[in-house]
Amino acid sequence: MKATILTIGDEILIGQIVDTNSVSIAKHLNQAGVVVHEKCSIGDDAGEITHTVRRAMQESEVVIITGGLGPTKDDITKKTLAQLFDSEMRYDEAVAQHVEQMLTSRGIEFNALNRSQAEVPVACTVLHNAHGTAPGMWFEREGRVVISLPGVPYEMEHLMEDEVMPRLKAHFSLRQIVHRTLITSGLAESILAKRIEQWEEALPAYLKLAYLPSAGIVRLRLSAYEVEGRQVAEEIEHRFAELQHLIPDYVVGFETATVEEQVHRCLMDRGQKLAVAESCTGGKIASKFTAMAGASAYFLAGLTTYSNEAKIKVLGVQASTIEAYGAVSEQTAREMAEGARRVTGADYAVATTGIAGPSGGSAEKPVGTVWFAVATPEGITTALHLCGTDRGQVIDRATAYAIRMLRDALKWG
Amino acid sequence: MKATILTIGDEILIGQIVDTNSVSIAKHLNQAGVVVHEKCSIGDDAGEITHTVRRAMQESEVVIITGGLGPTKDDITKKTLAQLFDSEMRYDEAVAQHVEQMLTSRGIEFNALNRSQAEVPVACTVLHNAHGTAPGMWFEREGRVVISLPGVPYEMEHLMEDEVMPRLKAHFSLRQIVHRTLITSGLAESILAKRIEQWEEALPAYLKLAYLPSAGIVRLRLSAYEVEGRQVAEEIEHRFAELQHLIPDYVVGFETATVEEQVHRCLMDRGQKLAVAESCTGGKIASKFTAMAGASAYFLAGLTTYSNEAKIKVLGVQASTIEAYGAVSEQTAREMAEGARRVTGADYAVATTGIAGPSGGSAEKPVGTVWFAVATPEGITTALHLCGTDRGQVIDRATAYAIRMLRDALKWG
Repeated sequence: MKATILTIGDEILIGQIVDTNSVSIAKHLNQAGVVVHEKCSIGDDAGEITHTVRRAMQESEVVIITGGLGPTKDDITKKTLAQLFDSEMRYDEAVAQHVEQMLTSRGIEFNALNRSQAEVPVACTVLHNAHGTAPGMWFEREGRVVISLPGVPYEMEHLMEDEVMPRLKAHFSLRQIVHRTLITSGLAESILAKRIEQWEEALPAYLKLAYLPSAGIVRLRLSAYEVEGRQVAEEIEHRFAELQHLIPDYVVGFETATVEEQVHRCLMDRGQKLAVAESCTGGKIASKFTAMAGASAYFLAGLTTYSNEAKIKVLGVQASTIEAYGAVSEQTAREMAEGARRVTGADYAVATTGIAGPSGGSAEKPVGTVWFAVATPEGITTALHLCGTDRGQVIDRATAYAIRMLRDALKWG
Repeated sequence: MKATILTIGDEILIGQIVDTNSVSIAKHLNQAGVVVHEKCSIGDDAGEITHTVRRAMQESEVVIITGGLGPTKDDITKKTLAQLFDSEMRYDEAVAQHVEQMLTSRGIEFNALNRSQAEVPVACTVLHNAHGTAPGMWFEREGRVVISLPGVPYEMEHLMEDEVMPRLKAHFSLRQIVHRTLITSGLAESILAKRIEQWEEALPAYLKLAYLPSAGIVRLRLSAYEVEGRQVAEEIEHRFAELQHLIPDYVVGFETATVEEQVHRCLMDRGQKLAVAESCTGGKIASKFTAMAGASAYFLAGLTTYSNEAKIKVLGVQASTIEAYGAVSEQTAREMAEGARRVTGADYAVATTGIAGPSGGSAEKPVGTVWFAVATPEGITTALHLCGTDRGQVIDRATAYAIRMLRDALKWG
């Protein structure tokens, strides 16, 4: 079964926001076996909305729309869908009460604009938006389902989980989509492709292989869409096992579990503690760990010591070390990691110090130069990586390297 | 002039990656006066690509495609475009040399797969990809331009800047797109809309107003597409000034300058220093500042003290304070901010301590409870906010609140 995701809003087309709604919707649909056939973003324009929803209904059984449901004049999705489904509007008392209650609890007056949020097309089934004031809507026509959700990510997410997915599963008989992802490191994409060429050529037609290269790693994803039966599932597992045996030294992880999730789980399981000492990554490593629920069980502190004085005062780096070798050096990285372990009492500490740019580079230490250190109960490991030339790129790559070093240290620690 | 942005890759449709390429491309086009009419994502499927490019060429003068240019079997964009433009392939010596040089410098063998990256359709103009191995391509047909770029964000970005935009500006005569954004805080969307209703109704037809609500703020964006002449520009400024006068107490910023950018600029201008003490925001505040080039001029340290011990040891919070009031309390927040100032010698320090969830909440201090403190040379301000119920939401909202408090402290400090 196919779906089209449609996100509405001029702010998407002018690049004012990053569309994460469609990512989350795509994940939900995939998990349930619905193939996302197309994602599309258009502006707040009635003609465009009508035209695109009609086209999507020709190509997909399910159309999920987000955005344009607010109380202000620029929000026209509801009115446009009502016209498309030749529907009058009605005042929904239950929605009105919910909206009034939500606003009153926040001390906001329930005015005419908010009252208009309780106006819904007669043709739709209302989807209760427990976390916001704009109700979701479910339309059906000629075997097609069109769903309209608010664009606020948090509200949309709860509606997908609590209202949309259960209804889709009840409404359609869905098949399975299987994705198996192998994370590799150490082989360039072209070399890796050469290495697994024969295996790839022998894959059955229903198995698709994708290469997803990114900073320092290549993900290999094996996908089967809308499959059925136990034999197919076994075949996929078999092929996936073969692939691992072809490149055992380069496999660094599986599935969509990120490296930080692996570290997270490992530290939770072992009851060990972590501290982070950052310079050029500026808090990004800490925020990756603390974004995960339960991190407080092992994450003691993230000490972003940007200035030399902070490195000395907070982490106990020797002033003479910085003077002799510079803040971006193996010695400084080492003392930062050791210091973070000592100050916090953590079992493991990872440190980064580098030049994120755009300024601060030299011939000897160009922008992108980053020193890493991981301190463990057994000792200390250091590494040097050139992490690119763009500030954001350097921060992201250095964050990824640091977390991978930590994962490696945990594996053998 | 209209453009369609087309991103290709199954990984987008299954929600494995967030598409940031189209955001960056949209920004470039907008700035140059090209109206992005639609953004579309489809899978690595020749039929879909052909069909969608043809459709886009009917609706837009410019079609920009990213993705599917890698050396492996799943990358089919180049071959498909060659067929669409009825073109043979040719071996481009200059591209081959560049690819070989790039790979050799990284110690990677130049094999048959990489050699295939130098194969380009005869019908296209090659766009030099200085930072990667897949060349960009520029096709023209019947007044339409179709541009194909690699999906690696960094390579795509440089190609847009150095190759695509200069060529588009030379090829087409472009008009102007004007966006003016006012950032408001303190009025709910519906109340704000009521307040500026008459002003909004009096706007000329070519001026579009958009409401963009997000955590604690509402952005008002006034847009004029493809306008010409000085009078229009003056009219927009005039309307924008009127808007500000209607709600003077609720205006917290302008344009797309984020609050952290305002703080960044203010501290740079004044030569003052900043430190951050985080608990529940987990390094996110620090990473917002350190993401900006030049932050090292004022950002001394970000001390993410997740454990009570770290709060005591690193920031000098009194153990008795935590014992008496709890880690999530006004008193602890206050001592964290004071401690960060004292330890680092910063002029300003902001602190957060709260319950991000999902666990750790209580009836008295539910998930989302966050205490804030800003320490300045003049004194200390504290605040309590309920920042939502979802971990990511709590972290993001608390980060936004903290940075706004800091901005307010700077304004009056």
